[in-house]
Amino acid sequence: MELVPRKRLELFSGRAHPELAREVADHLQVKLGELTLREFSDGEIYSRFDQSVRGKDIFLLQSHAGPVNDSIFEQLIMVDAAKRASAKRITAVCPYYGYSRQDRKASGREPITAKLVADLFKAAGADRIISVDLHSGQIQGFFDGPVDHLTATQVLTDYLRAQDASDLVIVAPDAGRVKVAERYAQKLQAGLAVVHKSRPKGMANVVNALNVVGDVAAKRCVIVDDMIDTAGTVTAAADLLLSRGASDVWVMATHPILSGPAIKRLTDSSISRVIVTNTLPLSGDRLTDKIEVVSIAKVIADAIAAVFEDGSVSELFHGDNLS
Amino acid sequence: MELVPRKRLELFSGRAHPELAREVADHLQVKLGELTLREFSDGEIYSRFDQSVRGKDIFLLQSHAGPVNDSIFEQLIMVDAAKRASAKRITAVCPYYGYSRQDRKASGREPITAKLVADLFKAAGADRIISVDLHSGQIQGFFDGPVDHLTATQVLTDYLRAQDASDLVIVAPDAGRVKVAERYAQKLQAGLAVVHKSRPKGMANVVNALNVVGDVAAKRCVIVDDMIDTAGTVTAAADLLLSRGASDVWVMATHPILSGPAIKRLTDSSISRVIVTNTLPLSGDRLTDKIEVVSIAKVIADAIAAVFEDGSVSELFHGDNLS
Amino acid sequence: MELVPRKRLELFSGRAHPELAREVADHLQVKLGELTLREFSDGEIYSRFDQSVRGKDIFLLQSHAGPVNDSIFEQLIMVDAAKRASAKRITAVCPYYGYSRQDRKASGREPITAKLVADLFKAAGADRIISVDLHSGQIQGFFDGPVDHLTATQVLTDYLRAQDASDLVIVAPDAGRVKVAERYAQKLQAGLAVVHKSRPKGMANVVNALNVVGDVAAKRCVIVDDMIDTAGTVTAAADLLLSRGASDVWVMATHPILSGPAIKRLTDSSISRVIVTNTLPLSGDRLTDKIEVVSIAKVIADAIAAVFEDGSVSELFHGDNLS
Amino acid sequence: MELVPRKRLELFSGRAHPELAREVADHLQVKLGELTLREFSDGEIYSRFDQSVRGKDIFLLQSHAGPVNDSIFEQLIMVDAAKRASAKRITAVCPYYGYSRQDRKASGREPITAKLVADLFKAAGADRIISVDLHSGQIQGFFDGPVDHLTATQVLTDYLRAQDASDLVIVAPDAGRVKVAERYAQKLQAGLAVVHKSRPKGMANVVNALNVVGDVAAKRCVIVDDMIDTAGTVTAAADLLLSRGASDVWVMATHPILSGPAIKRLTDSSISRVIVTNTLPLSGDRLTDKIEVVSIAKVIADAIAAVFEDGSVSELFHGDNLS
Amino acid sequence: MELVPRKRLELFSGRAHPELAREVADHLQVKLGELTLREFSDGEIYSRFDQSVRGKDIFLLQSHAGPVNDSIFEQLIMVDAAKRASAKRITAVCPYYGYSRQDRKASGREPITAKLVADLFKAAGADRIISVDLHSGQIQGFFDGPVDHLTATQVLTDYLRAQDASDLVIVAPDAGRVKVAERYAQKLQAGLAVVHKSRPKGMANVVNALNVVGDVAAKRCVIVDDMIDTAGTVTAAADLLLSRGASDVWVMATHPILSGPAIKRLTDSSISRVIVTNTLPLSGDRLTDKIEVVSIAKVIADAIAAVFEDGSVSELFHGDNLS
Amino acid sequence: MELVPRKRLELFSGRAHPELAREVADHLQVKLGELTLREFSDGEIYSRFDQSVRGKDIFLLQSHAGPVNDSIFEQLIMVDAAKRASAKRITAVCPYYGYSRQDRKASGREPITAKLVADLFKAAGADRIISVDLHSGQIQGFFDGPVDHLTATQVLTDYLRAQDASDLVIVAPDAGRVKVAERYAQKLQAGLAVVHKSRPKGMANVVNALNVVGDVAAKRCVIVDDMIDTAGTVTAAADLLLSRGASDVWVMATHPILSGPAIKRLTDSSISRVIVTNTLPLSGDRLTDKIEVVSIAKVIADAIAAVFEDGSVSELFHGDNLS
Repeated sequence: MELVPRKRLELFSGRAHPELAREVADHLQVKLGELTLREFSDGEIYSRFDQSVRGKDIFLLQSHAGPVNDSIFEQLIMVDAAKRASAKRITAVCPYYGYSRQDRKASGREPITAKLVADLFKAAGADRIISVDLHSGQIQGFFDGPVDHLTATQVLTDYLRAQDASDLVIVAPDAGRVKVAERYAQKLQAGLAVVHKSRPKGMANVVNALNVVGDVAAKRCVIVDDMIDTAGTVTAAADLLLSRGASDVWVMATHPILSGPAIKRLTDSSISRVIVTNTLPLSGDRLTDKIEVVSIAKVIADAIAAVFEDGSVSELFHGDNLS
Repeated sequence: MELVPRKRLELFSGRAHPELAREVADHLQVKLGELTLREFSDGEIYSRFDQSVRGKDIFLLQSHAGPVNDSIFEQLIMVDAAKRASAKRITAVCPYYGYSRQDRKASGREPITAKLVADLFKAAGADRIISVDLHSGQIQGFFDGPVDHLTATQVLTDYLRAQDASDLVIVAPDAGRVKVAERYAQKLQAGLAVVHKSRPKGMANVVNALNVVGDVAAKRCVIVDDMIDTAGTVTAAADLLLSRGASDVWVMATHPILSGPAIKRLTDSSISRVIVTNTLPLSGDRLTDKIEVVSIAKVIADAIAAVFEDGSVSELFHGDNLS
Repeated sequence: MELVPRKRLELFSGRAHPELAREVADHLQVKLGELTLREFSDGEIYSRFDQSVRGKDIFLLQSHAGPVNDSIFEQLIMVDAAKRASAKRITAVCPYYGYSRQDRKASGREPITAKLVADLFKAAGADRIISVDLHSGQIQGFFDGPVDHLTATQVLTDYLRAQDASDLVIVAPDAGRVKVAERYAQKLQAGLAVVHKSRPKGMANVVNALNVVGDVAAKRCVIVDDMIDTAGTVTAAADLLLSRGASDVWVMATHPILSGPAIKRLTDSSISRVIVTNTLPLSGDRLTDKIEVVSIAKVIADAIAAVFEDGSVSELFHGDNLS
Repeated sequence: MELVPRKRLELFSGRAHPELAREVADHLQVKLGELTLREFSDGEIYSRFDQSVRGKDIFLLQSHAGPVNDSIFEQLIMVDAAKRASAKRITAVCPYYGYSRQDRKASGREPITAKLVADLFKAAGADRIISVDLHSGQIQGFFDGPVDHLTATQVLTDYLRAQDASDLVIVAPDAGRVKVAERYAQKLQAGLAVVHKSRPKGMANVVNALNVVGDVAAKRCVIVDDMIDTAGTVTAAADLLLSRGASDVWVMATHPILSGPAIKRLTDSSISRVIVTNTLPLSGDRLTDKIEVVSIAKVIADAIAAVFEDGSVSELFHGDNLS
Repeated sequence: MELVPRKRLELFSGRAHPELAREVADHLQVKLGELTLREFSDGEIYSRFDQSVRGKDIFLLQSHAGPVNDSIFEQLIMVDAAKRASAKRITAVCPYYGYSRQDRKASGREPITAKLVADLFKAAGADRIISVDLHSGQIQGFFDGPVDHLTATQVLTDYLRAQDASDLVIVAPDAGRVKVAERYAQKLQAGLAVVHKSRPKGMANVVNALNVVGDVAAKRCVIVDDMIDTAGTVTAAADLLLSRGASDVWVMATHPILSGPAIKRLTDSSISRVIVTNTLPLSGDRLTDKIEVVSIAKVIADAIAAVFEDGSVSELFHGDNLS
Repeated sequence: MELVPRKRLELFSGRAHPELAREVADHLQVKLGELTLREFSDGEIYSRFDQSVRGKDIFLLQSHAGPVNDSIFEQLIMVDAAKRASAKRITAVCPYYGYSRQDRKASGREPITAKLVADLFKAAGADRIISVDLHSGQIQGFFDGPVDHLTATQVLTDYLRAQDASDLVIVAPDAGRVKVAERYAQKLQAGLAVVHKSRPKGMANVVNALNVVGDVAAKRCVIVDDMIDTAGTVTAAADLLLSRGASDVWVMATHPILSGPAIKRLTDSSISRVIVTNTLPLSGDRLTDKIEVVSIAKVIADAIAAVFEDGSVSELFHGDNLS
């Protein structure tokens, strides 16, 4: 028996962010695959593919939106079901990758949960991972298989370029994010400033005073980060920047987690504008006037198409998807 | 350099069921280990051992109580942290093992989530698992390492024997649980009955009528199961048994999941008594008059001591911990 | 260099049951692949593929007929040879899966040999397994890869429907097989009875008396099981059923192991008919008048074709291949 | 809880060669552990440890005597049971290692069964292997863990030295065994000869004529090999050596497989003496006058003691256990 | 047989940096283990332990000094030999971990060699790794086992505190090292400055101009980095800092790679002092007047002792060994 | 989305032997793929594929020429980069496989480095290996995946046949190489002799005298080996053969390592001719008059084509590629 095999792409969505999945499917001009996902009364997740996936090239899109453990677990279960149903290749598409900040031990006897998550996807049977703007590039090394690391740099800098962007200073909100800020500053030919923690002389008990290095006076400061979670860091940084004479403070980040007090903090803050992508769902009363959302869907769709068609993903980004 | 090594047991508790952990620790006459567990604003779990676990024999007790994904994930993170902190051996103690009912494909393209959970614990770094009354004995084979499979049979039959137990019939609530019911019936020298699904002749569209085989008239029926979840099965079975002349219906199960409508159903039902163990937490208004709780803590403590001291676990149960 | 790959199926047979392999090949309209298999004088098995298998989709059919260890070992060696000869994908087709009853620890310090067998096939290099009516559905979870679990339910119930089947009662020969019996009863709209062990009151030293629950008087009882091994269970059950007034007792099972005293027991027994499939070889004087054999070959051939062509296996069975 | 761990050795025997196990146990001054091993009617092997093995240092002795697949399978099942019963360390003691001649592909599309066997022991859970005179030293590299490779060189050369050994020539029975023969010749300060295949000029269709290089006239020739299987090679070599003027031909080998026609061939042959060890059982009418058996039990016992006590195994052999 | 096991530490040194190994051994008050290491004429490395390592707790110290591939390969071969010689536990002590800068893909189709190195140590059989000041903390997550991550922060800041350290500014030599600089600045209550790349407006073809943010005029600038390789970055940074009015420039780093033009560059540069540790060998004419070496030996010795004695490593560092 | 996949072969060369890679590419009529390989100042190797390898069938050719650790490491890094860049299949083509002589423990506590190298390639992500004339056939079993084992037997015997080859004797230079010599002798219908070590009687302190068995007087002796390293063995053997009356001594080997004193030894020796292949580079003043090089490139090219096109590799060699 002999035949010429055909390769078929199927894109399925978990329940964390179906809007994004639909948008990606539209860009790919495919229909989302049929998949049952529901919870039993006790919280256990049930999953079943309602169409054959045997021999298919399967993409399972799930952003690790809150409740984050449920989102991750649901995707793992989808992977397990796809593996046992004989999918040819399983790609976990995680626009936002959960626990990415726990990527090293910041203290003894801590877990490295970002590595654990990668191990779990491997154990479940994922062949590869696609993600956007991982908290650190090293997370690519955590997964024992190929990782396509996409970036929102292009869509976010396009947004800024479309604005009046003279006298721009890119600000790293803490010492660990300076490299990303530098990249934005170079692309936009803007200045650079860094907010950092300091312990002033003679004030031993003041542990974490904030300070800023770099010239921000009379400039529009754009704080760039990979994610905004509780917004505590950026709102404190904004106050400091304005106190140093900044004319205006914007915040730009890929992942709008915006948990807990974030919306209220941003609303009450001195920040004038918040630019994010839709790697995580953001709707209803969480979408305040200050927040501008640019879509990441085409970036993800292009990457999926390149993966499926054996094209080059790095050429999609001209080297931006790195850190 | 040379020394005589010492073996040290440390028992830590996750946040799903700390009461049980404390009770187990009391039986073992040890203090629970110090461990930070908390959630960040976005729902990510943070874990850190507050004492050295290097070289220790670590037992991490977490029952997979609801929210079940959080409970499992928290335990996985604890395992990862213990592994990276150089624990000598890590035992995941899961009094109730989540997703145990999804232990085979009941339909094409389903996951086998009970196997996935075992794989996740392996990936995280667990060396062994202790659990109580797994939904099926085959789950022991899912974990690639030793599993100590404990049972509540002894404490539950002791409860029954302490009651007036003449004219007892043990009832399997569905066709898949007859083996367990048979074991109880043999131990108690009681009769056996089986509730099962049937499709009467000439009624092609009646899919799942319930029927009972075995003599229940004028008997006290004790429905035995490994768990009570929504209580739908047992309340329907109870009605059927009473309609067949049973004098009285009790329900006995190891794991009181009691999710969703369970408490209301049991309260409203014709069941007179519900006997469960404390493998899962049960408190406050969920503890109705009908429910009797017998403790599993000593069973778990004895097993942990035997594992630590290289004693025999199967001798603790005289062969009961099997199915 | 570039080419359009072609997928080629090759089916090879071990020496345990070549008749079935030829029948499967006929259904698939392929020739069995050429393969040398022989034993050296000291009992070591030698295997060599006599045609290139490089890049091919290989199916290695071997039922685990007795001598069971030789059958399994021969298939493992075939898998190893195929792996080293660069087969693209290797499917172990095991119509009867050996050691499937040892699927859990029925007593402390026992092996779980059904899991061991799955691990051995993984270690040897099998990518997937096809089997028929596994002793328990959980065995699917033992293999770390896809398992296509076929069933003889359809061909066996078709046989029964072709007979006069009024007043039929399906009987589970022990407490662990009630679920399968229930499925047959539902499909055939027949009654259900269960033979089980009991320990009568006041007779503490009678360990395992047999009892039956369910109404069998004046009915044709069909005992259903997954396999008939020594036939001890079913002949004892048949006697009990007739003593309870059954008009007639048939036995129906997928796997005719029929080891040791089985043929004599069945011949001497009160059982009128035994219906089995040919997942295991059965010929010559073992084929008594009472035994009817229905062929499983087309079921296996259809599954192999579906696996090769990336079709759906579960649709072949309309959900029957589950338990 | 804290304790000083104790290490306990337990030695169990499979059913292939219990005499050797008892002899080893006597040397170690331990009792053989209690273990149930039996076959079901259908040939499946049942195994159960009748004493706790939790935390113990377990040695499972099974020589791969014929029926070889049963011997190997039985040992694998013992390993699985020990692993699930929480043995601390499991050593498979295989005095004769089955399939060791299939250690490379002698032809395309063959298996490397000696590697497969190593993989199976790994998959079952063996931590280490002890074996005697492996067919090739490279097999040590097949197992992914420590292998203690013992040798009978000492006990066999001791035997020769106790005889009148002037004018001794050590003969390699084929081209692949010259290295071992050289080692014996060096230790005994004896001559060396090699029997090899040749294809004489002008006789293209004579494929495999035997020839000998080295001077054997008027010498006692001792053919050394690792094993004697059907004895075809050594009896042919003996005839050739005598035709070249050898005064006398002895054969010396570690493993007396002696399968099929071996006993008759040796009896009928021109070989005067056959010296072997008891790595494999040899008794009754297979023990002809020509055969001398020297015991390997102390060698194995010493190695087990060294492994248990963390002593040096290589010092036991002064570098002989190598090839 | 039963005994009380004893734990024995053995420390062996590769050939990359024997001086450091001796110094560590002195702190531990142990003798370095005996080990043969040499090269064959063709460059292949030969290794053999000259004493039994069976059952021992083995530490194999090798800094990945140049030629780096040889250093790594030699350590891998030592690990393999120790594994096959039945060492109980094998710790690879890598004071400087090679390829640590290739810890993420800085461009498409690059390797992540730091992960590869971790995978190689795992494949060879290392149970754990001890290293000092990894280029990024995430590398801990690359190794599938415990990593003890030590730091030179304490010994280096102690050096600075012993100097006149008023008017100190800690300088990050590029955007990716600000977090480490911040930590030093906090500990020393010093100022912070950052050298970064910028692309000035209107000068599109000037790709990578250097700029500094933070106030350095009339200050002693201490550039801190994890390693000094070719010294290009720090000498350029020093020139920039002096041009901005710095009074003085020092450089401080853990790992003195000092490859290629480094010594000449430092000698010729405006840098007044270079403070490094001895994680890598530095001797002879490479030890110029400007270079001060503080020893890391006690830090490593303390960690080894804690690992061996199951003490706490993180307490040795009071939280400093993190990033 | 659906498409017909195309398979694309890409051949890349490491820096150890680019001439051979180009020759292989010419035979295959493909262009060598574009790949950056260079060393940083500190000796770390940098690798980057300059063209997309996603979904391609990648062959990475690197002979393990000296400096051998660098050659192996470079190939491992290329494999890692290809894996992370999503190559579909990665074949490590190692014409000469480094460390192949360390294929067993020749002494206690040695590594088995040939196995380690196989494990490293597996860990890095190689799917298969192609090599030529491995030092022992068992090395095929070291790699956990398919190995295509090529041989130079055909091209080397063709060379001999083209010469005047009457009165030829094939000589094994030591006891371990007799099997290969036998194969050559059979193919060429030539005589066979063996050089071996002996310890003459009464000369206990002469450890390793050389001796020869077989008739060499007035014959042209061709010493065959898999490799010539320092040429010590073959030059000593040649002297011995001439002293026994050989008319002429040639040496023939697949791999011209020719390290250290080899060229001088061969030049100064009594050997008249040295025939080798180009599995290793050999040029300039190392190419003396005595050395004849026959090319292995077509053999490798044919094997790569067969692997790519799923043809038969063993048929290319008519059974010669074995040992």
